[in-house]
Amino acid sequence: MSTNVFDPASASVTVLGLGPMGRALATAFLDAGVRTTVWNRTPGRDAELVARGALTAGSAEEAVAASGLVVVCVVNYDASDAILRRETVTDALKGRTVVNLSADTPARARDTGEWAGRHGVRYLDGAIMTPAPSIGTPDAVFLYSGPRDLYEEHRPVLDVLGGAHTHLGEDIGRAASYDIALLDIFWTAMGGYAHAVAVARAEGISAGELTPFAQGIAAILPPLFEEFAHDVDSGTYSGELNPLTSGASTMAHIVHASEEHGIEASLMRAIEGQARRVIGLGHGADGFMRVAEVLGRTRRP
Amino acid sequence: MSTNVFDPASASVTVLGLGPMGRALATAFLDAGVRTTVWNRTPGRDAELVARGALTAGSAEEAVAASGLVVVCVVNYDASDAILRRETVTDALKGRTVVNLSADTPARARDTGEWAGRHGVRYLDGAIMTPAPSIGTPDAVFLYSGPRDLYEEHRPVLDVLGGAHTHLGEDIGRAASYDIALLDIFWTAMGGYAHAVAVARAEGISAGELTPFAQGIAAILPPLFEEFAHDVDSGTYSGELNPLTSGASTMAHIVHASEEHGIEASLMRAIEGQARRVIGLGHGADGFMRVAEVLGRTRRP
Ligand SMILES: NC(=O)c1ccc[n+]([C@@H]2O[C@H](COP(=O)([O-])OP(=O)(O)OC[C@H]3O[C@@H](n4cnc5c(N)ncnc54)[C@H](OP(=O)(O)O)[C@@H]3O)[C@@H](O)[C@H]2O)c1
Ligand SMILES: NC(=O)c1ccc[n+]([C@@H]2O[C@H](COP(=O)([O-])OP(=O)(O)OC[C@H]3O[C@@H](n4cnc5c(N)ncnc54)[C@H](OP(=O)(O)O)[C@@H]3O)[C@@H](O)[C@H]2O)c1
Repeated sequence: MSTNVFDPASASVTVLGLGPMGRALATAFLDAGVRTTVWNRTPGRDAELVARGALTAGSAEEAVAASGLVVVCVVNYDASDAILRRETVTDALKGRTVVNLSADTPARARDTGEWAGRHGVRYLDGAIMTPAPSIGTPDAVFLYSGPRDLYEEHRPVLDVLGGAHTHLGEDIGRAASYDIALLDIFWTAMGGYAHAVAVARAEGISAGELTPFAQGIAAILPPLFEEFAHDVDSGTYSGELNPLTSGASTMAHIVHASEEHGIEASLMRAIEGQARRVIGLGHGADGFMRVAEVLGRTRRP
Repeated sequence: MSTNVFDPASASVTVLGLGPMGRALATAFLDAGVRTTVWNRTPGRDAELVARGALTAGSAEEAVAASGLVVVCVVNYDASDAILRRETVTDALKGRTVVNLSADTPARARDTGEWAGRHGVRYLDGAIMTPAPSIGTPDAVFLYSGPRDLYEEHRPVLDVLGGAHTHLGEDIGRAASYDIALLDIFWTAMGGYAHAVAVARAEGISAGELTPFAQGIAAILPPLFEEFAHDVDSGTYSGELNPLTSGASTMAHIVHASEEHGIEASLMRAIEGQARRVIGLGHGADGFMRVAEVLGRTRRP
């Protein structure tokens, strides 16, 4: 076993992008003792990292040249393209590994995979599914896709970022596919939470008073996700325990109570509209997940 | 102590409404040994309950006359009005307690409270925040509002329904206010989940494959709800860890990836629209909860 023990001090990584997430990644690498070089488009974001021992670089190409592994974490792929696809940077990346942890669409990930292949850059795509403070803790969740051997090669150093790391497959777009689906759940839930808080406050309930009960709602989601996933994958949509007609009725209450306070209810109007339409298609006795089936009725190949 | 021990066999309850939730409530009362009379508009829903020992009634007035405590659980207050506000039923209710566990708006709950006061009906409003299978288990969550002494009087028999029971205050509409805010979170999250599953499947990911990661998203919500509630109640909206501009970028990815598959993205378009508008108002460096503040900017009294 001892021959396979990974020594972080022997590893070296470059982090491009020092927003909240890039800084959290660099901090975790530094805390583990990995030799870490950082760079950001706008200077001055690295002060705290340098104090922790980060090496700085005067340019992206210099930063890239410092390590065999380059982790990119910027706002999206327009931003990562703006950094990586300049000739001098692309040249410096030849033979090195890029792990792009920026969020964007599967199409952009695939396009970047092709670009990397054309330029002799070894490429893994990835996504981070937990907030910046989770990095370096057991709560962090990282997804990857691309060549499995490349993932295995860099897995030990990526592991110092903490939490769960999952390789989803060789299709370079797969991490981004999961990312958009999961962020879809995340942002929609957050949109509902923001709206609920606005309505609650108009009803004289503070956000703090609502919180423990809102947390109770979050707690009922995981078993329902499992049950509803089974509905969709098996094509059964039982409404025996909660028919769509019952749900649509409560959606209407939310719209009314919200709009009576002058608070727009575009989200719940959209959800109620989907439910009413699915009821209109004859599925009122089915469960809510029939909505997913109807939404997913796309053109047939 | 022994003089205060509650004996379920000495209690008696009537359940009006035998949808999935009404049946779950009646089942829990019966399992605890409470004398339970049931009635439903459409006959034939009580077979399993009768087999468990439920008493049936030929009419709502007969059912009401059988118990001092009447629990109503139907689709909404149009339905509970249709049952309760017929003269013979209203007369039979005089001096008895109604606990209305149907969902509707705070305005409808207050209107029912007034009606009850005019007719000598003792009235508690309530809401159930967990799915039907939770009833009778420690996972159930019940909310109540109305006269506290009435709540305390019936608390022992309501407790046999299991889980957590909270009296939110004397304002009869308060349980419904919480209910709409919490269902707002619930249905919006479910709308996001249904959409995410549709997009994931179009990307070749089954709902079952997405599930463990979707459950991971549910797991990050409770601490964020707490943090974001503090943002709203204190009027601070720090975007230091995740600025709204960053979130809006990922919302756009979801819209694009969805619509490229021919899957409508009305929910995420609405959320991105809210975020873009709030950024346009000058709050792009703030955190997401600034959306709640802007949504809640209603007319000043
Ligand atoms: N924060 C979180 O909790 C979290 C959680 C999960 C995933 N993520 C993902 O992680 C990635 C980074 O997020 P973040 O939180 O660090 O903040 P962010 O606001 O999404 O990204 C900021 C970073 O992007 C850079 N950038 C933007 N446009 C650029 C361009 N045209 N050229 C070069 N660099 C550019 C910024 O550089 P400047 O300083 O020069 O503007 C900064 O380094 C995003 O894809 C985000 O979705 C974040
Ligand atoms: N199921 C759940 O998981 C769940 C969870 C939390 C809260 N709730 C709430 O519990 C309440 C009951 O829900 P549910 O799941 O049992 O099913 P539901 O479909 O919401 O309600 C069905 C019940 O409403 C009755 N009803 C409808 N219109 C009526 C009318 N005009 N007159 C008399 N009765 C009428 C039905 O009688 P018929 O049989 O004659 O149609 C049936 O008893 C709802 O407010 C719901 O939001 C349900």
